[in-house]
Amino acid sequence: MKKVDHIGIAVRSIEASLPFYTEMLTLTLLKEEVIKEQGVKVAFIDAGNVKLELLEPLSDESPIAKFLLKKGEGIHHIAFEEEGIETRMKQLKDKGLTFLTDKPKKGAGGADVAFLHPKQAHGVLYELCEHAREKGESHHE
Amino acid sequence: MKKVDHIGIAVRSIEASLPFYTEMLTLTLLKEEVIKEQGVKVAFIDAGNVKLELLEPLSDESPIAKFLLKKGEGIHHIAFEEEGIETRMKQLKDKGLTFLTDKPKKGAGGADVAFLHPKQAHGVLYELCEHAREKGESHHE
Repeated sequence: MKKVDHIGIAVRSIEASLPFYTEMLTLTLLKEEVIKEQGVKVAFIDAGNVKLELLEPLSDESPIAKFLLKKGEGIHHIAFEEEGIETRMKQLKDKGLTFLTDKPKKGAGGADVAFLHPKQAHGVLYELCEHAREKGESHHE
Repeated sequence: MKKVDHIGIAVRSIEASLPFYTEMLTLTLLKEEVIKEQGVKVAFIDAGNVKLELLEPLSDESPIAKFLLKKGEGIHHIAFEEEGIETRMKQLKDKGLTFLTDKPKKGAGGADVAFLHPKQAHGVLYELCEHAREKGESHHE
Protein backbone atom coordinates (compact mmCIF):
# COMPACT_ATOMS: atom_id res chain seq x y z
CA MET A 1 0.00 0.00 0.00
CA LYS A 2 1.71 3.20 -1.10
CA LYS A 3 -1.10 5.55 -0.18
CA VAL A 4 -4.83 6.14 -0.43
CA ASP A 5 -5.69 7.03 -4.03
CA HIS A 6 -9.35 7.88 -3.57
CA ILE A 7 -12.43 7.47 -1.40
CA GLY A 8 -15.51 6.16 -3.23
CA ILE A 9 -18.87 7.71 -2.37
CA ALA A 10 -22.20 6.29 -3.61
CA VAL A 11 -24.69 8.96 -4.74
CA ARG A 12 -28.07 8.80 -6.47
CA SER A 13 -27.12 11.64 -8.80
CA ILE A 14 -23.73 13.20 -9.49
CA GLU A 15 -25.47 16.29 -10.83
CA ALA A 16 -27.39 16.74 -7.57
CA SER A 17 -24.36 16.01 -5.35
CA LEU A 18 -21.65 18.03 -7.08
CA PRO A 19 -22.71 21.50 -5.88
CA PHE A 20 -22.06 20.45 -2.26
CA TYR A 21 -18.43 19.75 -3.20
CA THR A 22 -17.75 22.48 -5.73
CA GLU A 23 -19.90 25.34 -4.38
CA MET A 24 -20.07 24.66 -0.64
CA LEU A 25 -16.64 23.11 0.00
CA THR A 26 -15.10 24.90 -3.06
CA LEU A 27 -13.29 21.74 -4.16
CA THR A 28 -12.41 21.17 -7.82
CA LEU A 29 -14.07 18.67 -10.16
CA LEU A 30 -11.23 16.84 -11.95
CA LYS A 31 -13.14 14.71 -14.47
CA GLU A 32 -16.28 12.71 -15.14
CA GLU A 33 -16.33 9.30 -16.79
CA VAL A 34 -18.79 6.54 -17.66
CA ILE A 35 -17.51 3.04 -16.85
CA LYS A 36 -20.00 0.77 -18.59
CA GLU A 37 -18.33 -2.47 -17.43
CA GLN A 38 -19.00 -1.50 -13.83
CA GLY A 39 -22.38 0.08 -14.46
CA VAL A 40 -21.41 3.47 -13.07
CA LYS A 41 -20.79 7.08 -13.91
CA VAL A 42 -18.04 8.59 -11.78
CA ALA A 43 -16.87 12.10 -10.93
CA PHE A 44 -13.45 12.69 -9.37
CA ILE A 45 -13.02 15.62 -6.99
CA ASP A 46 -9.65 16.95 -5.84
CA ALA A 47 -9.41 16.87 -2.04
CA GLY A 48 -5.71 17.79 -1.87
CA ASN A 49 -3.89 14.59 -0.95
CA VAL A 50 -6.65 12.20 -2.11
CA LYS A 51 -9.49 12.20 -4.62
CA LEU A 52 -13.16 11.79 -3.80
CA GLU A 53 -14.91 9.55 -6.36
CA LEU A 54 -18.67 10.08 -6.63
CA LEU A 55 -20.32 6.93 -7.99
CA GLU A 56 -23.75 7.08 -9.65
CA PRO A 57 -25.42 3.86 -10.87
CA LEU A 58 -26.23 3.58 -14.58
CA SER A 59 -28.97 1.01 -13.97
CA ASP A 60 -30.73 -0.93 -11.21
CA GLU A 61 -28.33 -3.85 -11.82
CA SER A 62 -25.27 -1.78 -10.87
CA PRO A 63 -23.61 -2.80 -7.57
CA ILE A 64 -23.91 0.87 -6.60
CA ALA A 65 -27.70 0.74 -7.14
CA LYS A 66 -27.82 -2.24 -4.77
CA PHE A 67 -25.65 -0.41 -2.22
CA LEU A 68 -27.96 2.64 -2.39
CA LEU A 69 -31.02 0.45 -1.93
CA LYS A 70 -29.52 -1.29 1.12
CA LYS A 71 -27.59 1.51 2.83
CA GLY A 72 -28.55 4.77 1.15
CA GLU A 73 -26.10 7.40 -0.07
CA GLY A 74 -22.73 7.42 1.67
CA ILE A 75 -19.10 6.33 1.72
CA HIS A 76 -18.67 3.17 -0.35
CA HIS A 77 -14.98 2.21 -0.42
CA ILE A 78 -11.35 3.22 0.20
CA ALA A 79 -8.87 2.66 -2.65
CA PHE A 80 -5.15 2.09 -2.10
CA GLU A 81 -2.74 2.97 -4.89
CA GLU A 82 -0.57 0.03 -5.84
CA GLU A 83 2.29 -0.82 -8.14
CA GLY A 84 2.24 -4.37 -9.44
CA ILE A 85 -1.34 -5.14 -8.43
CA GLU A 86 -1.23 -8.82 -9.42
CA THR A 87 1.87 -9.48 -7.30
CA ARG A 88 0.23 -7.63 -4.44
CA MET A 89 -2.98 -9.66 -4.82
CA LYS A 90 -0.95 -12.86 -4.67
CA GLN A 91 0.85 -11.69 -1.51
CA LEU A 92 -2.45 -10.93 0.19
CA LYS A 93 -4.06 -14.18 -1.01
CA ASP A 94 -1.05 -16.08 0.41
CA LYS A 95 -1.83 -14.43 3.76
CA GLY A 96 -5.39 -15.78 3.56
CA LEU A 97 -7.30 -12.76 2.23
CA THR A 98 -9.88 -13.18 -0.53
CA PHE A 99 -10.87 -10.81 -3.34
CA LEU A 100 -14.28 -10.25 -4.91
CA THR A 101 -12.76 -11.15 -8.32
CA ASP A 102 -9.88 -13.47 -9.10
CA LYS A 103 -8.20 -11.00 -11.47
CA PRO A 104 -8.17 -7.19 -11.58
CA LYS A 105 -10.93 -5.48 -13.59
CA LYS A 106 -10.78 -2.25 -15.54
CA GLY A 107 -11.77 0.82 -13.55
CA ALA A 108 -11.79 4.58 -14.15
CA GLY A 109 -9.07 5.86 -16.48
CA GLY A 110 -8.19 2.30 -17.52
CA ALA A 111 -6.79 1.49 -14.06
CA ASP A 112 -6.57 -2.12 -12.88
CA VAL A 113 -8.75 -2.50 -9.81
CA ALA A 114 -9.55 -5.32 -7.39
CA PHE A 115 -11.69 -5.32 -4.25
CA LEU A 116 -10.89 -7.17 -1.04
CA HIS A 117 -13.81 -9.02 0.54
CA PRO A 118 -15.21 -6.59 3.15
CA LYS A 119 -15.91 -9.28 5.74
CA GLN A 120 -12.19 -9.76 6.47
CA ALA A 121 -11.76 -6.00 6.67
CA HIS A 122 -14.40 -5.61 9.40
CA GLY A 123 -17.02 -4.13 7.11
CA VAL A 124 -14.80 -1.83 5.01
CA LEU A 125 -14.63 -2.33 1.24
CA TYR A 126 -10.97 -1.83 0.24
CA GLU A 127 -9.94 -1.49 -3.38
CA LEU A 128 -6.45 -1.98 -4.78
CA CYS A 129 -5.90 0.30 -7.75
CA GLU A 130 -3.03 0.52 -10.23
CA HIS A 131 -3.13 3.44 -12.62
CA ALA A 132 -2.50 2.52 -16.25
CA ARG A 133 0.23 5.15 -16.73
CA GLU A 134 2.26 3.86 -13.80
CA LYS A 135 2.85 0.37 -15.11
CA GLY A 136 5.52 1.29 -17.63
CA GLU A 137 7.18 3.64 -15.17
CA SER A 138 7.49 1.39 -12.18
CA HIS A 139 10.90 -0.08 -13.07
CA HIS A 140 12.45 3.38 -13.34
CA GLU A 141 11.87 4.11 -9.65
CA MET B 1 -10.13 22.28 3.10
CA LYS B 2 -6.39 21.76 2.91
CA LYS B 3 -6.49 17.98 2.67
CA VAL B 4 -8.02 14.86 4.14
CA ASP B 5 -6.53 14.27 7.59
CA HIS B 6 -8.09 10.89 8.34
CA ILE B 7 -10.86 8.44 7.51
CA GLY B 8 -12.88 7.27 10.52
CA ILE B 9 -13.88 3.60 10.66
CA ALA B 10 -16.33 2.20 13.23
CA VAL B 11 -15.29 -1.15 14.70
CA ARG B 12 -16.67 -3.31 17.51
CA SER B 13 -13.17 -3.99 18.82
CA ILE B 14 -9.87 -2.30 17.97
CA GLU B 15 -8.02 -5.35 19.30
CA ALA B 16 -9.90 -7.64 16.89
CA SER B 17 -9.57 -5.28 13.89
CA LEU B 18 -5.93 -4.22 14.19
CA PRO B 19 -4.34 -7.44 12.85
CA PHE B 20 -6.07 -6.89 9.48
CA TYR B 21 -4.25 -3.54 9.17
CA THR B 22 -0.91 -4.33 10.79
CA GLU B 23 -0.42 -7.99 9.80
CA MET B 24 -2.37 -8.35 6.56
CA LEU B 25 -1.87 -4.89 5.01
CA THR B 26 1.41 -4.33 6.96
CA LEU B 27 0.42 -0.78 7.86
CA THR B 28 1.79 0.90 11.01
CA LEU B 29 -0.18 1.63 14.18
CA LEU B 30 0.63 5.23 15.14
CA LYS B 31 -1.13 5.58 18.49
CA GLU B 32 -4.13 4.59 20.57
CA GLU B 33 -6.12 7.00 22.71
CA VAL B 34 -9.23 7.05 24.86
CA ILE B 35 -11.47 10.10 24.26
CA LYS B 36 -13.92 9.96 27.16
CA GLU B 37 -15.87 13.08 26.07
CA GLN B 38 -16.81 11.31 22.82
CA GLY B 39 -17.24 7.86 24.34
CA VAL B 40 -14.65 6.20 22.11
CA LYS B 41 -11.29 4.54 22.06
CA VAL B 42 -9.39 5.30 18.84
CA ALA B 43 -6.40 3.82 17.03
CA PHE B 44 -4.62 5.75 14.28
CA ILE B 45 -3.04 3.80 11.44
CA ASP B 46 -0.59 5.30 8.95
CA ALA B 47 -1.87 4.86 5.38
CA GLY B 48 0.79 7.04 3.76
CA ASN B 49 -0.93 10.28 2.83
CA VAL B 50 -3.83 9.94 5.28
CA LYS B 51 -4.52 8.23 8.58
CA LEU B 52 -7.15 5.58 9.22
CA GLU B 53 -8.89 6.12 12.58
CA LEU B 54 -10.45 3.00 14.08
CA LEU B 55 -13.25 3.99 16.47
CA GLU B 56 -14.43 1.60 19.20
CA PRO B 57 -17.35 2.59 21.47
CA LEU B 58 -16.66 2.80 25.21
CA SER B 59 -20.35 2.24 26.08
CA ASP B 60 -23.77 1.66 24.52
CA GLU B 61 -24.41 5.42 24.74
CA SER B 62 -21.52 6.27 22.42
CA PRO B 63 -22.54 7.60 18.98
CA ILE B 64 -20.28 4.88 17.56
CA ALA B 65 -22.28 2.19 19.40
CA LYS B 66 -25.43 3.58 17.79
CA PHE B 67 -23.78 3.60 14.35
CA LEU B 68 -22.69 -0.03 14.80
CA LEU B 69 -26.20 -1.04 15.84
CA LYS B 70 -27.77 0.67 12.84
CA LYS B 71 -25.22 0.06 10.08
CA GLY B 72 -22.69 -2.44 11.39
CA GLU B 73 -18.93 -2.05 11.18
CA GLY B 74 -17.65 0.17 8.38
CA ILE B 75 -16.51 3.59 7.24
CA HIS B 76 -17.91 6.29 9.53
CA HIS B 77 -16.57 9.69 8.43
CA ILE B 78 -14.04 11.68 6.39
CA ALA B 79 -12.07 14.40 8.20
CA PHE B 80 -10.65 17.46 6.49
CA GLU B 81 -7.66 19.19 8.04
CA GLU B 82 -8.35 22.86 8.65
CA GLU B 83 -6.60 25.97 9.86
CA GLY B 84 -8.84 28.40 11.69
CA ILE B 85 -11.74 26.00 12.19
CA GLU B 86 -14.10 28.60 13.71
CA THR B 87 -13.65 30.97 10.75
CA ARG B 88 -14.19 28.06 8.39
CA MET B 89 -17.35 27.01 10.24
CA LYS B 90 -18.69 30.54 9.94
CA GLN B 91 -17.95 30.61 6.18
CA LEU B 92 -19.81 27.34 5.68
CA LYS B 93 -22.71 28.41 7.91
CA ASP B 94 -22.98 31.61 5.87
CA LYS B 95 -23.37 29.40 2.79
CA GLY B 96 -26.28 27.61 4.47
CA LEU B 97 -24.58 24.48 5.85
CA THR B 98 -25.35 23.30 9.37
CA PHE B 99 -23.10 21.54 11.89
CA LEU B 100 -23.99 18.90 14.47
CA THR B 101 -22.62 21.19 17.20
CA ASP B 102 -22.50 24.96 17.30
CA LYS B 103 -18.86 25.08 18.45
CA PRO B 104 -15.92 22.72 17.87
CA LYS B 105 -15.43 19.91 20.40
CA LYS B 106 -12.21 18.29 21.59
CA GLY B 107 -11.18 15.25 19.56
CA ALA B 108 -8.14 12.96 19.49
CA GLY B 109 -4.84 14.60 20.43
CA GLY B 110 -6.67 17.71 21.68
CA ALA B 111 -7.75 18.67 18.15
CA ASP B 112 -10.76 20.93 17.62
CA VAL B 113 -13.35 19.00 15.63
CA ALA B 114 -16.79 19.78 14.19
CA PHE B 115 -19.09 17.61 12.08
CA LEU B 116 -21.19 18.82 9.17
CA HIS B 117 -24.75 17.52 9.08
CA PRO B 118 -24.62 14.46 6.77
CA LYS B 119 -27.95 15.19 5.10
CA GLN B 120 -26.54 18.18 3.19
CA ALA B 121 -23.52 16.08 2.20
CA HIS B 122 -25.66 13.37 0.58
CA GLY B 123 -25.16 10.84 3.35
CA VAL B 124 -21.47 11.44 4.08
CA LEU B 125 -20.41 12.53 7.56
CA TYR B 126 -17.66 15.15 7.09
CA GLU B 127 -15.54 16.34 9.99
CA LEU B 128 -13.49 19.53 10.11
CA CYS B 129 -10.41 19.00 12.24
CA GLU B 130 -7.77 21.46 13.45
CA HIS B 131 -4.77 19.94 15.19
CA ALA B 132 -3.83 21.63 18.45
CA ARG B 133 -0.17 22.11 17.49
CA GLU B 134 -1.03 23.96 14.29
CA LYS B 135 -2.87 26.84 15.88
CA GLY B 136 0.19 28.73 17.06
CA GLU B 137 2.01 28.04 13.83
CA SER B 138 -0.58 29.16 11.33
CA HIS B 139 0.53 32.81 11.15
CA HIS B 140 4.07 31.78 10.24
CA GLU B 141 2.99 30.25 6.94
